[in-house]
Amino acid sequence: MQREEIKLRDERIVRSEAPLNLEMPFSSMDGFLTPTKSFYVRTHFPIPGIDRDAWWLNVEGEVEKPFAINYEQLITLESSMAPVTLECAGNNRNFLEPKVKGVQWRLGAVGNAEWTGVRLAALLDRANPKPNACEVVLEGADGGMLEDAKGPPGELKFARSIPLEKARRDVLLAYKMNGEDLPPEHGFPVRAIVPGWYAMASTKWLQRIIVTDRPFTGYYQTIDYAYWQRTDYAHWQRGEQIAELTPLTEMQLKAEIAHPTEGEIVPANSIVCVRGAAWVCDAEIVKVELSTDGGATWNDTKLLGESKLNAWRLWEFNWQTPSQQGKQTLMARATDSLGRTQPVNRDPDRGTYMINHLLPIKIELQ
Amino acid sequence: MQREEIKLRDERIVRSEAPLNLEMPFSSMDGFLTPTKSFYVRTHFPIPGIDRDAWWLNVEGEVEKPFAINYEQLITLESSMAPVTLECAGNNRNFLEPKVKGVQWRLGAVGNAEWTGVRLAALLDRANPKPNACEVVLEGADGGMLEDAKGPPGELKFARSIPLEKARRDVLLAYKMNGEDLPPEHGFPVRAIVPGWYAMASTKWLQRIIVTDRPFTGYYQTIDYAYWQRTDYAHWQRGEQIAELTPLTEMQLKAEIAHPTEGEIVPANSIVCVRGAAWVCDAEIVKVELSTDGGATWNDTKLLGESKLNAWRLWEFNWQTPSQQGKQTLMARATDSLGRTQPVNRDPDRGTYMINHLLPIKIELQ
Repeated sequence: MQREEIKLRDERIVRSEAPLNLEMPFSSMDGFLTPTKSFYVRTHFPIPGIDRDAWWLNVEGEVEKPFAINYEQLITLESSMAPVTLECAGNNRNFLEPKVKGVQWRLGAVGNAEWTGVRLAALLDRANPKPNACEVVLEGADGGMLEDAKGPPGELKFARSIPLEKARRDVLLAYKMNGEDLPPEHGFPVRAIVPGWYAMASTKWLQRIIVTDRPFTGYYQTIDYAYWQRTDYAHWQRGEQIAELTPLTEMQLKAEIAHPTEGEIVPANSIVCVRGAAWVCDAEIVKVELSTDGGATWNDTKLLGESKLNAWRLWEFNWQTPSQQGKQTLMARATDSLGRTQPVNRDPDRGTYMINHLLPIKIELQ
Repeated sequence: MQREEIKLRDERIVRSEAPLNLEMPFSSMDGFLTPTKSFYVRTHFPIPGIDRDAWWLNVEGEVEKPFAINYEQLITLESSMAPVTLECAGNNRNFLEPKVKGVQWRLGAVGNAEWTGVRLAALLDRANPKPNACEVVLEGADGGMLEDAKGPPGELKFARSIPLEKARRDVLLAYKMNGEDLPPEHGFPVRAIVPGWYAMASTKWLQRIIVTDRPFTGYYQTIDYAYWQRTDYAHWQRGEQIAELTPLTEMQLKAEIAHPTEGEIVPANSIVCVRGAAWVCDAEIVKVELSTDGGATWNDTKLLGESKLNAWRLWEFNWQTPSQQGKQTLMARATDSLGRTQPVNRDPDRGTYMINHLLPIKIELQ
């Protein structure tokens, strides 16, 4: 990646123009909340221009009382506020070898914002899901034709589902991001926020909430944003595994280094503050370690602030750099409250998603 | 299709050599049972060479008592015999305009054989599925690597699932075809026969029966042998349909003309016996009509033999050909006991499968 080739928009790297995909240079991460103007943008279609006064959100499907609610009505409902980290399921894809298709994100398809909105549970309670209800499809206003031969014929809208239980427990219908109205590229007027899951679940430009009686198998649940998970059904004898196409869900445990950055020249024999963030789904970050020698030895870093579920945790380490000049490889490794830690090597079954193996950052001491 | 280009093997048209795909020229259909040596062959991988004396069939997954059974044990169990029509889900694909990918079957990726074997219900009863069981995966011994970028990494085996209820009710584990051992290309030593469903469900070279507690999403259930079905979840207001990736299941109602064939020269002012077969899933063929004028008028044909569920029904019509020479377009149209009839036009949502709209056969009167 040559620095001079990078095209920026509002301090973000333009990964593509149509659809618009913007990455935050992760080196600019310098606080618990990511400023809205720095927050990465992932879109699949042109950004819908929605008139808030004409916007309606439908709640329908396997419910006793389908209804629609407009913006004015929505914001009068009891609101909640929570910091939630959103990460693209393809974040870090540019580090994969061999190269794979898809937006070539490096470290910055992730951000943490404070979201204000109405709990999806409130709307579901009003609609009263039928006993056979099992999932909730969140459909956006963004859509169009796909060029994928494996996709459906005709137009489609972006849509993603979550289990009814998670929809009730966690999901926020956000109309504010960091205390202000959502900008168009972040889903104005309302974006679903699905804490802990990769951000494809957090549907922007929300227009329909559809309760279903069976697992939803739309395009972004099967052909896109899915991977081949190996299942062992046998529990017995010579059980061979079977690969099953499985929708992406939970963010995988990860720590990233924001400073120093790849290729940076760092003073030798000095104190350098190495810092970054770490996150995971539905668990706490209990440890982030840093290796400054390519993984041979590890140092505990300092976790900053307090732990908030499904928001990232910042960390830092004051590194006494050696006096010897030359290249050095930094790596960060997170451990969570369920005892999990990041894998050293890439699992090829994950295809082009869920990249959370240890990533080396090469710097130069001078 | 130039006649001189056609390569034949045992009277069948070679559609591909590796994997082996053979089509029966449908004009050779001349009785209720298709001779085994004429029966179409669809394979996805090299044909496994299985030693019957070393073969075991495992019954496992969500069952109380997993077990394995060998050939000798299987054939001592109570046997059933039934004529069942098998049709490839892509039969008639060569007629689609514009042309689509896939094996270019014309009329002959269909056949009707008498299958002898053990009811799957007997094995399921012995294994005793757990209360949460919902599907049965039928896995073959055929497998390998896929060249499909959307497929799973690594090797896979052919596998397909059916609902537990259908598995119990209908499925036969066949070890004889038309009274003789299955030939290798038809699944020796044992092939599952799933009556009424497209033949991808009738797994050949059966080696594992896996009971699952959720819908199976293997490759041949999602990326292949699936289509985009439009669902209307709304039942209400401005319900837009949503396309969902849906496994192929039931054969669609269809009549085909075996004689005369495309391009054939037929005597004018004469009696010509037009004949063919018609089939459907889980219903009876109650009427087959023939049009000899491109669909302007229709004549009832004579249904032959007796109706047997999920086996085809032969039909014929003694056509008094007009004295005027020239081209003529024949079309057959089936109606079933549920009041359904074949569609005039192709439904593009069906992709490259489930082709059952009316197909014209052009002949020449002389």
